[in-house]
Amino acid sequence: TVNELMEPLHPADIADLLEQVDSSERAAILKVHEIDGETLSELDESIREEVFDLLSPGVLSDAVRELESDDVVDIIEDLEDDQQKAILDALEDNDRLAVQQALSYPEYSAGRLMQREVVAGPEHWTVGEAIDWLRSREDLPDDFYHVTLVDPRYHPVGNVTLGKILGHRRDVKLKDIAEDSFRTIEATEKEADVAYAFNQYHLISAPVVDEDGKLVGVITIDDAMIVLEEEAEEDILRLAGVGDESSLSDKVVATTRRRAPWLAVNLATAIIASLVISLFEDTIAQYVALAVLMPIVASMGGNAGTQSLTVAVRAIATKDLTGSNVLRVIRREVLVGTVNGVIFAVVMGLVGWVWFGAPMLGAVIAAAMIINLVVAGLAGTVIPVVLDRLKVDPALASGTFVTTVTDVVGFFAFLGLAAVVLL
Amino acid sequence: TVNELMEPLHPADIADLLEQVDSSERAAILKVHEIDGETLSELDESIREEVFDLLSPGVLSDAVRELESDDVVDIIEDLEDDQQKAILDALEDNDRLAVQQALSYPEYSAGRLMQREVVAGPEHWTVGEAIDWLRSREDLPDDFYHVTLVDPRYHPVGNVTLGKILGHRRDVKLKDIAEDSFRTIEATEKEADVAYAFNQYHLISAPVVDEDGKLVGVITIDDAMIVLEEEAEEDILRLAGVGDESSLSDKVVATTRRRAPWLAVNLATAIIASLVISLFEDTIAQYVALAVLMPIVASMGGNAGTQSLTVAVRAIATKDLTGSNVLRVIRREVLVGTVNGVIFAVVMGLVGWVWFGAPMLGAVIAAAMIINLVVAGLAGTVIPVVLDRLKVDPALASGTFVTTVTDVVGFFAFLGLAAVVLL
Ligand SMILES: [Mg+2]
Ligand SMILES: [Mg+2]
Ligand SMILES: [Mg+2]
Ligand SMILES: [Mg+2]
Ligand SMILES: [Mg+2]
Ligand SMILES: [Mg+2]
Ligand SMILES: [Mg+2]
Ligand SMILES: [Mg+2]
Ligand SMILES: [Mg+2]
Ligand SMILES: [Mg+2]
Ligand SMILES: [Mg+2]
Ligand SMILES: [Mg+2]
Ligand SMILES: [Mg+2]
Repeated sequence: TVNELMEPLHPADIADLLEQVDSSERAAILKVHEIDGETLSELDESIREEVFDLLSPGVLSDAVRELESDDVVDIIEDLEDDQQKAILDALEDNDRLAVQQALSYPEYSAGRLMQREVVAGPEHWTVGEAIDWLRSREDLPDDFYHVTLVDPRYHPVGNVTLGKILGHRRDVKLKDIAEDSFRTIEATEKEADVAYAFNQYHLISAPVVDEDGKLVGVITIDDAMIVLEEEAEEDILRLAGVGDESSLSDKVVATTRRRAPWLAVNLATAIIASLVISLFEDTIAQYVALAVLMPIVASMGGNAGTQSLTVAVRAIATKDLTGSNVLRVIRREVLVGTVNGVIFAVVMGLVGWVWFGAPMLGAVIAAAMIINLVVAGLAGTVIPVVLDRLKVDPALASGTFVTTVTDVVGFFAFLGLAAVVLL
Repeated sequence: TVNELMEPLHPADIADLLEQVDSSERAAILKVHEIDGETLSELDESIREEVFDLLSPGVLSDAVRELESDDVVDIIEDLEDDQQKAILDALEDNDRLAVQQALSYPEYSAGRLMQREVVAGPEHWTVGEAIDWLRSREDLPDDFYHVTLVDPRYHPVGNVTLGKILGHRRDVKLKDIAEDSFRTIEATEKEADVAYAFNQYHLISAPVVDEDGKLVGVITIDDAMIVLEEEAEEDILRLAGVGDESSLSDKVVATTRRRAPWLAVNLATAIIASLVISLFEDTIAQYVALAVLMPIVASMGGNAGTQSLTVAVRAIATKDLTGSNVLRVIRREVLVGTVNGVIFAVVMGLVGWVWFGAPMLGAVIAAAMIINLVVAGLAGTVIPVVLDRLKVDPALASGTFVTTVTDVVGFFAFLGLAAVVLL
């Protein structure tokens, strides 16, 4: 039976299986397989609403009651109001309060990512006191990696790893074995910055504080890791003009609606490039070889520009491109554009000459190639940097601007030089 | 002084600082600032050799002796032989052995990623026995999250989180509080698969076994997280034709050498597209509007194809696109291509008609648009899937193939239809 087949699977794999089958198979599986909380929290957003509508209220409330507060928040934040309410109603009072408080923080903030279940104790504790207290508690979180030390105002002042507690005698003071480097996260911080901090500083869990500096929750690395991958994924999709949170389970209409706007933007820029070409209709009519060769210059510029902008966009995202090295990077990209420009100018100059038997045509395409690859290096770096300063995500908009520039410059340089030199 | 300014910085930030300044500033800083092991292990590969050459043997050996074995392996695996030997010589005998054993595993394998320092005990242990043993050890790893239970042959049989040990009474048996789901990693497994497993199953640390199933090391989530981001980064760079392990600290020559091959491939495909155009030189000579409009069809196809292939490449990387849904995804992409094709056919048909006053020109560009966007959806999905089956990284090669297809089909459909219909 289906249940026997699914028994040995990890909830994450069951969720993947539900994502990969189609709607009718999904409904059939859910009729015979009772889904648990962990599987629910692994489900991709694109099919969550559909699955929730298929579940009976009893199954749903049993499932969500198993979960830690951060997982409940992650599940319900994107649901419709009525589904949200059904889940909140299923929770016990203090869990519901924890979830509602988390929801009061902005979307994509640390406050949404944290779990409210914290393990904290006074800074004067010894190892023995901590162990006795931990043993006495019935409701320890499933996973925790630190005991957070707090002062009398409940402000976190240090983190002690569980390994250190286990490795020391009962009379050792926790504050003497606290971690050297300690950082707190503000609940309003962006989740992307939280993920960056976890990866940069190799954090395993970090306390979250409210505006008064009071401990309100903890973020663990497994959740930060998910955000880190989502951010990289977002950049990949945005760079390709796919639109955010695209998923393989999306339907045709949803997918089209996400992609069409980017194709529309591309159409607009392609028309701008065509307008440049139309300036030279007479030249092309006299010398048709230009029509044959002109896409090469534009295409090489577009590719070189994409190389530069991709490096720049990622370096901005990983905070490797900063005010202190931006000029050096721009200079490097322009020099790389120059070197590649010369290389491909020579190649294409020879190809143009041999193909059409016209040395001057080779010279024109060579000159246009150098111009366009230099411009590509410059635009590919400056445009993402400027967009970032303007608080526009460079992953989202750089590609359009850069390829517009390289198309326009490529066609204009090639056809313009041809008009002057060849006719 | 420099040292006072750097004092409060985390090693990862000191490493970033060293990456962002130029070579001469780097040398100046290293003259006055004594670098420690953690900073060394944070340094980007692109400047490691340079920095190592600047360090005195004494500073270098002090620095590496602080590190866990996995960090030493990560540092030395890419160094030249003489630098490698200098570091190995600096290590104590058993550390050197651990590093050499790790280096005997293939590059990018779990064996390279794991640390040899494991915390393991017999499966019959109680909480109290584990605590007494942990307290008695002088050399516990800096960070560990589980006590791994091993059978008498030293095969791992379970993982107990430190939180569970701290939360239970001394007489509780470890095997009764071991984690439900337990997985071991083979030392020869690819690091990308290790990172996938950590992210998919929310692992925090996992035991690594050799071919006999014996425990040889442990991989922790912080290292898996770094690999996960590197894999996403690799896909981003490969999709853009930038070449691997590109870094902002690379020099002009190194950068050019990485990017030029991809531009050369692009040049070859652009020439193929030009050959298609040259088939229709006579048509273009009679009807120059075709030269003005033809890049639009090719550009829209290239963009739509890039959208499809990016989604497919990432879905393959995250194991979301499998044999069980590949046909459904191909069908969806073709349908999306058809819908977008019709939308932009109508728009471009009207633009072409109005711009050049020729309704049949509008009809031709509309038909070519539909053809090219359908082909883009098909090629954008099938090409990455086929490359993956052929064991070629789809991130690396899909873009070239897909845009060649959309260029060739775009020019051929538009100019071919024009030749038949308009002349
Ligand atoms: Mg999944
Ligand atoms: Mg969410
Ligand atoms: Mg880093
Ligand atoms: Mg969590
Ligand atoms: Mg979780
Ligand atoms: Mg985000
Ligand atoms: Mg971003
Ligand atoms: Mg760094
Ligand atoms: Mg480490
Ligand atoms: Mg390495
Ligand atoms: Mg490590
Ligand atoms: Mg790799
Ligand atoms: Mg890969």
